[in-house]
Amino acid sequence: MKHTSFLAVMIVVSVNLAGQIDNDSRPASTNVLGAQAPRVFPDGRAFFTLKAPDAKTVAVGGAFDKSPFPMSKSADGVWTVTIPAAVPGFHYYWFVLDGVQMNDPGAETYFGYGKETSGIEIPEAGVDFYAVKHVPHGEVRATWYFSKTTGDWRRCFVYTPPDYDKNQQQRYPVLILQHGAGEDETGWTKQGRMNFILDNLISEGKAKPMIVLMDRGYATRAGQQPIPVGPGAPRRNFTEGFAAFQDVVINDVIPFVDASFRTIPDRDHRAMAGLSMGGMQTLFIALHRLDTFAYIGSFSGPIIPGINTGTRQAGKSSSPQFDTKTAFDGAFAEPRQFNKRVKLLWLGVGTEEQQFRDGIRGAADALRAAGVNVTYFESPGTAHEWQTWRRDLRDFAPRLFQ
Amino acid sequence: MKHTSFLAVMIVVSVNLAGQIDNDSRPASTNVLGAQAPRVFPDGRAFFTLKAPDAKTVAVGGAFDKSPFPMSKSADGVWTVTIPAAVPGFHYYWFVLDGVQMNDPGAETYFGYGKETSGIEIPEAGVDFYAVKHVPHGEVRATWYFSKTTGDWRRCFVYTPPDYDKNQQQRYPVLILQHGAGEDETGWTKQGRMNFILDNLISEGKAKPMIVLMDRGYATRAGQQPIPVGPGAPRRNFTEGFAAFQDVVINDVIPFVDASFRTIPDRDHRAMAGLSMGGMQTLFIALHRLDTFAYIGSFSGPIIPGINTGTRQAGKSSSPQFDTKTAFDGAFAEPRQFNKRVKLLWLGVGTEEQQFRDGIRGAADALRAAGVNVTYFESPGTAHEWQTWRRDLRDFAPRLFQ
Repeated sequence: MKHTSFLAVMIVVSVNLAGQIDNDSRPASTNVLGAQAPRVFPDGRAFFTLKAPDAKTVAVGGAFDKSPFPMSKSADGVWTVTIPAAVPGFHYYWFVLDGVQMNDPGAETYFGYGKETSGIEIPEAGVDFYAVKHVPHGEVRATWYFSKTTGDWRRCFVYTPPDYDKNQQQRYPVLILQHGAGEDETGWTKQGRMNFILDNLISEGKAKPMIVLMDRGYATRAGQQPIPVGPGAPRRNFTEGFAAFQDVVINDVIPFVDASFRTIPDRDHRAMAGLSMGGMQTLFIALHRLDTFAYIGSFSGPIIPGINTGTRQAGKSSSPQFDTKTAFDGAFAEPRQFNKRVKLLWLGVGTEEQQFRDGIRGAADALRAAGVNVTYFESPGTAHEWQTWRRDLRDFAPRLFQ
Repeated sequence: MKHTSFLAVMIVVSVNLAGQIDNDSRPASTNVLGAQAPRVFPDGRAFFTLKAPDAKTVAVGGAFDKSPFPMSKSADGVWTVTIPAAVPGFHYYWFVLDGVQMNDPGAETYFGYGKETSGIEIPEAGVDFYAVKHVPHGEVRATWYFSKTTGDWRRCFVYTPPDYDKNQQQRYPVLILQHGAGEDETGWTKQGRMNFILDNLISEGKAKPMIVLMDRGYATRAGQQPIPVGPGAPRRNFTEGFAAFQDVVINDVIPFVDASFRTIPDRDHRAMAGLSMGGMQTLFIALHRLDTFAYIGSFSGPIIPGINTGTRQAGKSSSPQFDTKTAFDGAFAEPRQFNKRVKLLWLGVGTEEQQFRDGIRGAADALRAAGVNVTYFESPGTAHEWQTWRRDLRDFAPRLFQ
């Protein structure tokens, strides 16, 4: 803070638009302290502004229908735009200034797309299952554990339910809950508001009190270089990356949580779920380790034969179709046995996820046709986005450990 | 993630400079996962890069000596600069692109200057007191409490020392530790690495195991509008803002931590400290509430007569000088009594803090001359920056609760 006067930085930075605003918009709940923009209208439209007198073009880009939205420049060099009503929930976004992506200084940042990215919350009328309510609140604990798999200290977050510290005689089941690609272990609390969802479900008696552990879904084995998983990378790279993360989960995370928290350390009290890549990882890991997990959830986890549904046996090629007999090395081959062992197999997708819906729905249909018990959920009107996954968690968590 | 192909976002975003780098620089430890830039050289120089083919000028600005640093553009539209060796520690920074401040997509963000701001860590050779070591680690818990003062739920962070959950019979003293202006309750763990500093001190037996609570140092009373504290605001505004925060600390935070954690709930086991604005708040609050605090630390807390050292009695004007007889409504007026009551009064400043050093050193000298026991610490070669405050905590924490 050397180059700024002390008194200047004592201001809670505010974009003072008071004189210009004569409408029913309000600062977004995701804004940094005191920021008056971006603003959200009751109908879901949102107003954005950036001062950039020398820019030739500025637009709002991000996870909105029909983005980017070109902004207009006023005489004083301030660019503005009001975008059409957005789907309720959380949206990543950014400004594009003469071709360069930049964050909105008025917004909090959220780890997405492999970097810190602005976010905006569009309220959903009448919906408050992820709001901070007057109910007992759990804690979200940053904890550190040493991973033998990766050879370094890793941070994970652990949600402990309300009164965890008071109920010293009580032990709790565990849900491992994973983020998506380009996100990290902060996603489920910051974007997903999982702690408030659980607080609310638990206070209503709808979900069992449980411990929820959120880890970083990337792992590089000790002494190795990260495995490229971008476009063009061989499909086995995904399998190898997921397998390294599986070793972290099985050999490092579960022993850590069982040693450090009052868990019930058996498969009947252990669940795994994740969104998108985290859903792929969940199916990949849990379906190969039914000795460890009895509850399995994939939230918008793409079903991509040859990447995540195939065999892991070296030398065998994967089926190009989702085949319930062979998928996941035959996990579903004996449906009656599977149904007896697995207390919940839960698949979900948003109705607007054109790219994944057919694959996920198709897998659910195929499993059901083969006699596998599967719970299938569609989030109406939402795409590959956090509002889908919040709703997924609201449906999924009450089915656990009952 | 709607507008990006799934496989594309599965890449851990990387600025692949592998072909261009033929030197001893390394990606900064503060980079986002996989980002190859910014890079730090062993001598403290740092390399920055941004692709912006259409920009006319790009520079690196931030908390470095002699910033901003103009960047040079290559034929492919990539701007780069290597800046001179920076002071070790954490520095906020940003790009200035045609006059607009923007974050570096390769860096993590940190809440500073009232918004999310890029940061870079410059290692200090041979210094590891804030490193993640092979020692038992405490937890950093996000917790929520309802504030009667502000009328809303507030988040604070609570560091619990290693084995807090295992030592169910043990109770712990409490340090309330506050951030600076423009920062928030995330600062002490993200920028300050306070948990690793405490883990290391505790494992070496140098500091007593303690609970550390970090709250958001802004408070607006329920039903009121935020009080402006920018340049030109009346001085009483600062006093009013600090007084509202005092009510949060005394009436909300302390009852919360005492009810929710195994504290030793008395003044002899309670400390307050803070940096910059947090130091001002600490002196303002603790010196008026010696019934509540026995240990007091101000890290680079400006001594500004008339704002934070004067009387709080309505209608009385403040002295323009720091007067040990009248400062803080006479807290030091009876030095022998003060020394008996207060177990530690600790003032610190970096030697390069031209703007504050004389005021803080002068106050320490005046207090000592008046017979008040005061511990005064100077951090060599550092300015108004986190490396100063990390060193402060390393000196301060071992003096607590002994």
